[in-house]
Amino acid sequence: MGDKLWGGRFVGRTDPLMERFSSSFSFDRRLWAADIAATAAHVRVLARGGYLNQVEAQKILKALEEIKGEIASGRLPLEGEWEDIHSFLLARLEKKVGRPARKVHAGRSRNDLIALDLRLYLREKTEEITGLLADLQSALVLKGEETADVIIPAYTHLQRAQPVSFAHHLLAYVEMLERDKERLGDARKRLEVLPSGAAAVAGTSLDLDLKLMARLLGFRRLAANSMDAVSDRDFVLEIMSALALAGLHFSRLAEELVLWSSAEFSFIRLGEAFCTGSSYLPQKRNPDAAELVRGKTGRLLGNFTALFTVIKGLPLAYNRDLQEDKQPLFDTVDTVSDCAAILIRLVESMELNRPRLKRLEEEDYGAAPELAEFLVKKGRPFQEAHRIVGRMVLKALESGRRLRGMSVEEMQEFCPDFDAAAFKLISAGHRLDTRVTLPASHPRRIKANLRRWKKTLGAGRRGKKK
Amino acid sequence: MGDKLWGGRFVGRTDPLMERFSSSFSFDRRLWAADIAATAAHVRVLARGGYLNQVEAQKILKALEEIKGEIASGRLPLEGEWEDIHSFLLARLEKKVGRPARKVHAGRSRNDLIALDLRLYLREKTEEITGLLADLQSALVLKGEETADVIIPAYTHLQRAQPVSFAHHLLAYVEMLERDKERLGDARKRLEVLPSGAAAVAGTSLDLDLKLMARLLGFRRLAANSMDAVSDRDFVLEIMSALALAGLHFSRLAEELVLWSSAEFSFIRLGEAFCTGSSYLPQKRNPDAAELVRGKTGRLLGNFTALFTVIKGLPLAYNRDLQEDKQPLFDTVDTVSDCAAILIRLVESMELNRPRLKRLEEEDYGAAPELAEFLVKKGRPFQEAHRIVGRMVLKALESGRRLRGMSVEEMQEFCPDFDAAAFKLISAGHRLDTRVTLPASHPRRIKANLRRWKKTLGAGRRGKKK
Amino acid sequence: MGDKLWGGRFVGRTDPLMERFSSSFSFDRRLWAADIAATAAHVRVLARGGYLNQVEAQKILKALEEIKGEIASGRLPLEGEWEDIHSFLLARLEKKVGRPARKVHAGRSRNDLIALDLRLYLREKTEEITGLLADLQSALVLKGEETADVIIPAYTHLQRAQPVSFAHHLLAYVEMLERDKERLGDARKRLEVLPSGAAAVAGTSLDLDLKLMARLLGFRRLAANSMDAVSDRDFVLEIMSALALAGLHFSRLAEELVLWSSAEFSFIRLGEAFCTGSSYLPQKRNPDAAELVRGKTGRLLGNFTALFTVIKGLPLAYNRDLQEDKQPLFDTVDTVSDCAAILIRLVESMELNRPRLKRLEEEDYGAAPELAEFLVKKGRPFQEAHRIVGRMVLKALESGRRLRGMSVEEMQEFCPDFDAAAFKLISAGHRLDTRVTLPASHPRRIKANLRRWKKTLGAGRRGKKK
Amino acid sequence: MGDKLWGGRFVGRTDPLMERFSSSFSFDRRLWAADIAATAAHVRVLARGGYLNQVEAQKILKALEEIKGEIASGRLPLEGEWEDIHSFLLARLEKKVGRPARKVHAGRSRNDLIALDLRLYLREKTEEITGLLADLQSALVLKGEETADVIIPAYTHLQRAQPVSFAHHLLAYVEMLERDKERLGDARKRLEVLPSGAAAVAGTSLDLDLKLMARLLGFRRLAANSMDAVSDRDFVLEIMSALALAGLHFSRLAEELVLWSSAEFSFIRLGEAFCTGSSYLPQKRNPDAAELVRGKTGRLLGNFTALFTVIKGLPLAYNRDLQEDKQPLFDTVDTVSDCAAILIRLVESMELNRPRLKRLEEEDYGAAPELAEFLVKKGRPFQEAHRIVGRMVLKALESGRRLRGMSVEEMQEFCPDFDAAAFKLISAGHRLDTRVTLPASHPRRIKANLRRWKKTLGAGRRGKKK
Repeated sequence: MGDKLWGGRFVGRTDPLMERFSSSFSFDRRLWAADIAATAAHVRVLARGGYLNQVEAQKILKALEEIKGEIASGRLPLEGEWEDIHSFLLARLEKKVGRPARKVHAGRSRNDLIALDLRLYLREKTEEITGLLADLQSALVLKGEETADVIIPAYTHLQRAQPVSFAHHLLAYVEMLERDKERLGDARKRLEVLPSGAAAVAGTSLDLDLKLMARLLGFRRLAANSMDAVSDRDFVLEIMSALALAGLHFSRLAEELVLWSSAEFSFIRLGEAFCTGSSYLPQKRNPDAAELVRGKTGRLLGNFTALFTVIKGLPLAYNRDLQEDKQPLFDTVDTVSDCAAILIRLVESMELNRPRLKRLEEEDYGAAPELAEFLVKKGRPFQEAHRIVGRMVLKALESGRRLRGMSVEEMQEFCPDFDAAAFKLISAGHRLDTRVTLPASHPRRIKANLRRWKKTLGAGRRGKKK
Repeated sequence: MGDKLWGGRFVGRTDPLMERFSSSFSFDRRLWAADIAATAAHVRVLARGGYLNQVEAQKILKALEEIKGEIASGRLPLEGEWEDIHSFLLARLEKKVGRPARKVHAGRSRNDLIALDLRLYLREKTEEITGLLADLQSALVLKGEETADVIIPAYTHLQRAQPVSFAHHLLAYVEMLERDKERLGDARKRLEVLPSGAAAVAGTSLDLDLKLMARLLGFRRLAANSMDAVSDRDFVLEIMSALALAGLHFSRLAEELVLWSSAEFSFIRLGEAFCTGSSYLPQKRNPDAAELVRGKTGRLLGNFTALFTVIKGLPLAYNRDLQEDKQPLFDTVDTVSDCAAILIRLVESMELNRPRLKRLEEEDYGAAPELAEFLVKKGRPFQEAHRIVGRMVLKALESGRRLRGMSVEEMQEFCPDFDAAAFKLISAGHRLDTRVTLPASHPRRIKANLRRWKKTLGAGRRGKKK
Repeated sequence: MGDKLWGGRFVGRTDPLMERFSSSFSFDRRLWAADIAATAAHVRVLARGGYLNQVEAQKILKALEEIKGEIASGRLPLEGEWEDIHSFLLARLEKKVGRPARKVHAGRSRNDLIALDLRLYLREKTEEITGLLADLQSALVLKGEETADVIIPAYTHLQRAQPVSFAHHLLAYVEMLERDKERLGDARKRLEVLPSGAAAVAGTSLDLDLKLMARLLGFRRLAANSMDAVSDRDFVLEIMSALALAGLHFSRLAEELVLWSSAEFSFIRLGEAFCTGSSYLPQKRNPDAAELVRGKTGRLLGNFTALFTVIKGLPLAYNRDLQEDKQPLFDTVDTVSDCAAILIRLVESMELNRPRLKRLEEEDYGAAPELAEFLVKKGRPFQEAHRIVGRMVLKALESGRRLRGMSVEEMQEFCPDFDAAAFKLISAGHRLDTRVTLPASHPRRIKANLRRWKKTLGAGRRGKKK
Repeated sequence: MGDKLWGGRFVGRTDPLMERFSSSFSFDRRLWAADIAATAAHVRVLARGGYLNQVEAQKILKALEEIKGEIASGRLPLEGEWEDIHSFLLARLEKKVGRPARKVHAGRSRNDLIALDLRLYLREKTEEITGLLADLQSALVLKGEETADVIIPAYTHLQRAQPVSFAHHLLAYVEMLERDKERLGDARKRLEVLPSGAAAVAGTSLDLDLKLMARLLGFRRLAANSMDAVSDRDFVLEIMSALALAGLHFSRLAEELVLWSSAEFSFIRLGEAFCTGSSYLPQKRNPDAAELVRGKTGRLLGNFTALFTVIKGLPLAYNRDLQEDKQPLFDTVDTVSDCAAILIRLVESMELNRPRLKRLEEEDYGAAPELAEFLVKKGRPFQEAHRIVGRMVLKALESGRRLRGMSVEEMQEFCPDFDAAAFKLISAGHRLDTRVTLPASHPRRIKANLRRWKKTLGAGRRGKKK
């Protein structure tokens, strides 16, 4: 195990089992870039406070840049028996610049440093994920443009309820993802708070220019309380919760992709490049990607649960239990990123089975609510209208027919208010243009929504990134 | 079971087992005020659209006011075999105004109505809870003012780390609660969105003035997509998550109250009115309230987990599974409210054991970091300084003494940089005034923080409410 | 608040807020029967030890019987401001028998008493639920007998994979439920352990005949360690976990009932008495009961999560946090009982859409695996056979045909091993009788399984209970 | 990506993003030994059925042995772009034996194979963990023998309740761990069930001797239903739940080690080899290992939650979501193994602070319950006795004294039943020998328990393994 950042008062050696058990290097090494950035800013602050001279500071900053390049290029592999990424980097720094490296950890502790590293890491990751969510929105909007003229049933209780444009259905997900992005944006206010200066728990007696540090790192605020600064993991939980909600939206979309790909629905066909076969059944073409996305919701909840449980009942301030924050967080970040990326491709690859959907328009599940509201417009109380149309449905079912097939005269047997207009309203097939309220699926509204989203999401965003 | 809002197409009767199994009245009845408010606004909108005439509308609005009064006063008990609160209220309305009541449910469905009711309910509850959190902050700040001069150990790993003012410790919680309030505030943006007009899933063909409705109810935005509007429960999960985090903070404070009340710590004494005894051990005086608060964190996580699991993998749009949103939500709202209320009283009732805490100042856990930073200021690299002081600690322990008891000469055996100033720095007892950085516990800073919070939280807030 | 079982050392009164916050009477009152049984056994043990004389004991036992009758008949409502069910019952007892009642709580504490009550309660409830699970198995087996001749697709990835008997599909659930019953049975070993004698935490100095007590209550073992006896909630978590797994099985069945009831699948029709309509869409007939069962899985996981989180990190022995065990447990017990009861009725009410399923037999998803194994029997390596048939499927799809429609000659273009037997194998429609291995769906095996289950589950179990 | 076990009907190539997203090789590779064992048994069964001739079978079995050796020794690294461990091993096999390898996957699917692999893996792991739990019990029993004469307070509500032997406290954990072992043992019944023969979902038409296969693998039963066999993950959840409960016990022990190591309790000192220091505070010696064990409870619950959520609402039979079973399971297995191993060493390394504990015996928290039961033996109703002693405690506290310091006369002022025997009972210090009931902490009983456990756990178990 590499050199420890503590140990003066220890006589014996740490047990090797303990070293393995307590080391976090295998997972916190992914914070290397954040740790270098945090250390570089700290070095400038130490120099400003006179704890490093300019020559030392410059030498160290140069060495940190070098290390960054070495790691990024793979020349310096993040391997070996180290307690954590901090020890690894400080040892490397000392190898490069010698004794001045031993001054770098002044005025800080791993308690405030890890909090800072996590905040830097999450700032970058939430931005990346926000971009992916926007890309997924773009993919949905583009697919919506392609399919605005296709009518599918909107379901409630997985029963056909009313006809909607396929685009309207896709736009529901665009709304959900927008909220996900908003939540990540809101979390940022609480993320960009500088824990530095807290040191282990009660601050340092060194004179550190924390405002400079915040400026260097682009943070909004300084932490106001050192004990809170080192024990707070709200920002991790808040982001894990926001990402879990995004995953919940993914799971609903994935469920629909699975349903729609089934022989029974046959609404869509996912790109073959995103399906897999069976080792036993030669005929299979399975929507595995969508199933995996649906399944991965579990770990997002599991990760949140894990960290929440860790923190419950911990006294202030830092306790080593908090080391358990990183693996669930990293897994959540990776999972949401991967799922968003694969969903973008799934949506892009999705082809609609238009002949099948066309045939579905024969069904007249949409006629009943139209007729009921027709009666309301004629002055019938809605509850009566509902009952009248309910009885018509029952009658039609019993005689194996459809509402749509009734003549005006038959309709009038149920209610004299029905007339030719009512007959016309339902006999022509599905109508989307009767639903005028704002959130509804009127074709004009869908188009306006698609335009609005396209503009908001930025014309060529996806294009540029490809 | 009361009259149903559906049933025209049904021949047989619902099975009584099914009625019991699916009824939500026993818990959704708490939404009565929200449902009346939502219905009143809807009635005005129907009138504006010409679906109710002015006489009908006025009659209904008056009746709704009466029903509100009857329920609030207990004259109309929320009892009986009803499917849900909507059916209950519409039946009551019909009893009062007759046939026009049967017009009220036009242009809406229970799918959008329940979403609206929940949003109205949560708007009120999050405001109430925000007030309670502010009250708890005030209680902490007031207790902080009383105890700013008391020194306790700040702990890391439950080992004494450095001395801090008791107020500094309490202020850490004030910071946490502030974030909780912020999160609730952010959630509000996504809460005040009007789902009306979505009807069952695809909107209504009635002409509803939704902007008027939003204005009447004080909502910020109209939902843009009807399918999203009726299937979205993000706002419930987001608030349950924010409240669970608040509960996590409560659990940490509660843990500390339990620890501090133990014979071993003996830091505080909680008010007898908030302790209970044992049915077997006559001498016991248990901090039950704090234990219960700590324990109740479990249900906050459980509730979030429950609803999250419900929604996972549900296809659009409304599915009856969503009925399972209410009980976990209500339990979370109640639990956080109750815990906040009891914690306010616990904090107020807490008395410090000053003689015990005074004696603790003899311990010199705070000396080691002071000495290490003393050496840094003399130009020693921190890692060397840390090692030097570590060895001094070891030596002191081996000879059963304290750092504080060492003479300058003994100190100099470990490092020649030590001098009379170093000796003075640690021999005088705990120093809080050396820690100058922003989040630290310098007495001046504590006072400034207390003043700032008092001002922010509003001078007499607690006073006024009592 | 009723008289407390403690308080001698308290000067002031408990705060009313605290009384409300800490009272468990509103939910632990459901343990009344268990508490009376536990107390009756304890009274006999006290009498045996000489702490009550025979007259006192008889008087008390008689009074307990009376109270039992009063509560069971509703004459003694479980209402009022009581701390818990123990206080309520002891107060009632004292009202009936006077001073001897004050002797009853000797040698025990609420810590061991509540553990005992919970164990008694759970013994009864797990037995009841085991019965319900057996009834659900019976319903599935009976429905299986009706439908053994109906062929449906077995799905993997929600893609049609191979034909199976409908009964085979139902019997999969019978297997799952059998494991659920087994797990409850195993839990019982750890449930029937007597915590009495532990008193508050370290035992009592009274001479209690615990073996007598175990015998009276029908328990298998005495707890061996008093600290464990009062702090152990494993038996609650174990049963909550076992019941959550049962709920997971329910959720899978419910999902299938929802899918099968959709217009797209149209496999079944659930009894109208278990469906509900829409307040907006007059044509709807929703499988609400199945959706609710599916949704209620969430709370089963939430309840487990809640209690698990409560116990995490609690030092020994009893802590008041443990009061939080009851509500999640009771909710889990109720939920699983209700869901089992409703599922029994749903399964019974389910009618198959035989014409639709008959038409499905035209599809030839089952042909591909048959052909591949045909080639294996001819000596082809399976991976080659799989590839050959895969190519045949592709060819068929591209030309819009089915495997089943190919001539022998066409088949032989893909592999010369195909012959008339192969052609016959697939051209005749779905074959169930080729699959001979034990767990497979060969008609003979299905019948044997149905017979076996019917016998195991007891001929007329359901009948007797109706 | 290595060769796929499917693909005949696919035209294009799998997208590289999809390959990465869906590959399970990076984690399921740990099932290599199980997969080889399962394949070897399957090969024998294929040979028995005539699907492989003896030469082929022998060649394959030999090659499997070789591969096993190569992987075990590290010569064949489990690396590369493979879909899963099955594909990796079959490709390797083909490299060694050529075409016959392509016959091996006949009559099975990855659906039943992965279920079998998991069962084999878990059989081994639960046995290993059972051994570790027994070792931890042994460590506790040995430490109990060392410390049977040391008295510590038993706590309820973290308030001192009654004196107990340190060994009694440790034995509480031995009881808990015994239940954990029992639960793992019970799970085994449901684990050792052979899913083979189910193939993808409905069985195979090949004639496989499954009884032979069960015998070769040492399984108890054959699965009775193919659809259940491939979709069942109960055995994974059941074991994850049982292991999570074990982790809950670990967390309680860990919490106590942390508390006892604090300056305030100062009951114990953990071995330095299992503590770590602070990078900032030179004086610190933190019980990190115990904190990490406590924290790791979170992931055990998180893992259970994750998989449970995955399965909720999945229709039969296999869905790709189930691939999400492995990572949580493996993490739980590793976590419990590591925590058990480290706890064994922590318990072994723990040294009691006997002088401190001796001083604690001055405290007379144990006197009150002794006095109350003294009065009961004199015939006083317990509730009166409790109140009398409660008042004595109050009086003592108000005058800053102890019960133990009262004279007989003072005692008699509270109750005339007190006499010299009562005085003697409490004045001599803590008494453990008054508590005679079975689960209590009477010294004789402790000794008997220690002896019993030592015998049960096997004299030299730990010794032999070291």
